[in-house]
Amino acid sequence: MSLEIYNSLARQKEPFEPVEPGRVHMYVCGPTVYNDAHLGHGKTYINFDIIFRYLRYLGFKVRYVQNITDVGHILDTGEDRILLGAAREQMHPMELVETYTRRYFRDMDRLNILRPDISPRATGHIPEMLEWIANLIKTGHAYEANGSVYFDVGSYAEYGKLSGRRLEQAQSGTRVQIAEEKRRPEDFALWKKAEPEHIMRWNSPWGEGFPGWHIECTVMSVKYLGLPFDIHGGGVENKFPHHECEIAQAEAVTGNSFVKYWVHNGMLMIRGEEMHKSLGNFITLEEAFERWDPMVIRFFVLQSHYRGPLDMSEEALDGAARGLQRLRSTLRAVRRRIQSAPPGESPAELTTLLESGREAFEASMNDDFNTPNAIAALFELSRGINAWLDQGQGITQEALEAVDSLLERLMGEVLGLLPEGLEDEMEPGLGRELIELLIQARSALREQRAFEAADAIRDQLAELGVQLQDSPEGTTWTMA
Amino acid sequence: MSLEIYNSLARQKEPFEPVEPGRVHMYVCGPTVYNDAHLGHGKTYINFDIIFRYLRYLGFKVRYVQNITDVGHILDTGEDRILLGAAREQMHPMELVETYTRRYFRDMDRLNILRPDISPRATGHIPEMLEWIANLIKTGHAYEANGSVYFDVGSYAEYGKLSGRRLEQAQSGTRVQIAEEKRRPEDFALWKKAEPEHIMRWNSPWGEGFPGWHIECTVMSVKYLGLPFDIHGGGVENKFPHHECEIAQAEAVTGNSFVKYWVHNGMLMIRGEEMHKSLGNFITLEEAFERWDPMVIRFFVLQSHYRGPLDMSEEALDGAARGLQRLRSTLRAVRRRIQSAPPGESPAELTTLLESGREAFEASMNDDFNTPNAIAALFELSRGINAWLDQGQGITQEALEAVDSLLERLMGEVLGLLPEGLEDEMEPGLGRELIELLIQARSALREQRAFEAADAIRDQLAELGVQLQDSPEGTTWTMA
Repeated sequence: MSLEIYNSLARQKEPFEPVEPGRVHMYVCGPTVYNDAHLGHGKTYINFDIIFRYLRYLGFKVRYVQNITDVGHILDTGEDRILLGAAREQMHPMELVETYTRRYFRDMDRLNILRPDISPRATGHIPEMLEWIANLIKTGHAYEANGSVYFDVGSYAEYGKLSGRRLEQAQSGTRVQIAEEKRRPEDFALWKKAEPEHIMRWNSPWGEGFPGWHIECTVMSVKYLGLPFDIHGGGVENKFPHHECEIAQAEAVTGNSFVKYWVHNGMLMIRGEEMHKSLGNFITLEEAFERWDPMVIRFFVLQSHYRGPLDMSEEALDGAARGLQRLRSTLRAVRRRIQSAPPGESPAELTTLLESGREAFEASMNDDFNTPNAIAALFELSRGINAWLDQGQGITQEALEAVDSLLERLMGEVLGLLPEGLEDEMEPGLGRELIELLIQARSALREQRAFEAADAIRDQLAELGVQLQDSPEGTTWTMA
Repeated sequence: MSLEIYNSLARQKEPFEPVEPGRVHMYVCGPTVYNDAHLGHGKTYINFDIIFRYLRYLGFKVRYVQNITDVGHILDTGEDRILLGAAREQMHPMELVETYTRRYFRDMDRLNILRPDISPRATGHIPEMLEWIANLIKTGHAYEANGSVYFDVGSYAEYGKLSGRRLEQAQSGTRVQIAEEKRRPEDFALWKKAEPEHIMRWNSPWGEGFPGWHIECTVMSVKYLGLPFDIHGGGVENKFPHHECEIAQAEAVTGNSFVKYWVHNGMLMIRGEEMHKSLGNFITLEEAFERWDPMVIRFFVLQSHYRGPLDMSEEALDGAARGLQRLRSTLRAVRRRIQSAPPGESPAELTTLLESGREAFEASMNDDFNTPNAIAALFELSRGINAWLDQGQGITQEALEAVDSLLERLMGEVLGLLPEGLEDEMEPGLGRELIELLIQARSALREQRAFEAADAIRDQLAELGVQLQDSPEGTTWTMA
């Protein structure tokens, strides 16, 4: 079975066949860097990180572009998000952008989200946008009005094909900011005339101004990925108008198809409600990391399918922490035994177990990146591995390494749940040596028949999460 | 005594008076991101980080801009560094730029170099450069030839004022790539016509091309810092032609002074030779970090004055490691005693010691950021603190906190030698608890008169760098 992806444009799952065999060109709408990233960003970029990782796991050479919006993202009130942020923090807009871009990547890194190959900034592509807009005017799809330029949605017959909205619906049903200079309310800005107080401004054939939000994604995706490219992702809330406008801008002017697979992920909800500053349930990632290990948040996100909404609660996160702990315990149990295990071939029974685990995992991932099912397959595999460890036969170095390597690929490489340095967190270098010394001290105490002191050591270690196990061969330890 | 800075333009130390009282606008030439940063970059950006940090320490509100050169840096062979790198690594040029920008900041972070407030990319400022070039043509300082645009150095009488080179000298003495289309060999490119294979290209009034290296720094510094601004820094090797050309471009077109203080730092040498790939002595920071703690490299750099060259050898770095260790030991000795010290006022004798230490430190830093003398003042202070600790009188919580706070400001805030997380490295959280348990186990063994086992614990801890000290009040420990 090979990979199928739900294509929002076709409204169904389709076999994945890239434009160029062996290569995938993928674009995901990135953040507007005027504020800290919140849990919703966490969900979105984990969702697309998994797609990126799994495509690489399948052997595709992937180029992943995710933009940084540092100009042009206008609120319903008509205010520019970046300028609002700059005024709030009394910074130059580019200082604000620099600060929040850095913080964005810091948060993404903590979630073990791989960096995109290219992170183009909107302000870095003004000339390309000006050219594209000029072409839209020349081909009759855009018009200038009072120093701004608008896309004429009536000029593009397929407007609405992604979201399913027809123009008449949009007209009556959507809150559209009506500027008198527009021919129709749905026409959208490609270039906005800069008011005197607008610090971010560039010269253009239509006077000083700044680009609209939609045009940057069309221009930057095509610049780095060509036309058509394979996958365009983003939050479902961006399907209309943002992605609809991207398609119109691209296809109207080029006459070519823009994107082969449109992929939309569902929103993060907090106890059934959308996250909003006004509802008091707005949680930045930085705040979330104070309460939960980033890997627990990641695991929690992966326990639901990317297309669905995800309802967050503390109980659900605590449950995720326990689940992740179970998977990690298996891996740890395997790794701890590798050094001391005897050499020898991996038993056939284990090979079968691993092979069927991998197949179940891949089958789930091939089904539109179904991570909850893939995680279920991992739990099943983990139970099998624990049972194999318990029965005590054929536990050779080679066998343990085979298990380690598969878990590293599926849990680490694909799901991103084993960031570098995790080993150190689990068993710090110095800590390991100190624990060995404590075991030595405890057995010396037992030799002296000072059992009370020896037991106190054991109990206090247990409180620190270090469990001692006595056996005829000596004492070993595990960390909770 | 207030701050004096050596101004390369005036060829002397001058009192520092910013253009706008209380504010400093500072620009430093950043890296060309086509390769990993090497030890020479380490020296340069540590040198300027100290200037940034000390200006903030003095209470200035500093805006620090450091560019990222991602296009236009042409080698003597006429090849573009970014395109060479992209061909080498079979990447899109922007993937290359993304990769090495990220690695650059990773390395700088490890050296505890503060991020600049704005890191503008050259490719993000093409429109501004095109405008500036058009103005130079309009004012008669530049001319178009065969799709490229050159600055006419003969049109600017002060060309050479920074480097002291006069045109005739340059003509005969410098290796200048001679293009037939130039009027004089010293004329330099503002805009280069793109050959067909040049992937990074933009439209311009003179055809498709890309900007020269010099123009980006003029345009981006003025955009974010105004004209004139306070400090322009860079390596001494950039004084000519890069900075000379920056001045010409800025002052010829605006008629205004460009920069108030030009600051140049000296080069890093390896055993007396310049670092070059061809000499086999080229050391990337990533390689260096495998052998030396980044803080040791930082301390080593700070032990010499920024303007001088710095000769590197293993012995010198080992010496720096020992020196840094001595300063850290003092700080650690102070911090370890804070919790258990009795409350009470700080003795007057200590206040005097700290005050004179701070004054000596600031006097050195005020003398053109003389870090070697500032470090000597820290060693002197550290000896005084150790003597005070040894005499055992008036060691109150308040007194220890006063010492801690001063060292944190001078060693941490100004010199950047105490990165966050250093405490954890010195005394890991779990390790601390385990060591306490071991002390408990050892004393239980001694109660059982199992002295041999007890001593074995002590000796093995010592091997791990943990020294136990017994006293009538119990056992304490320190880390080597």
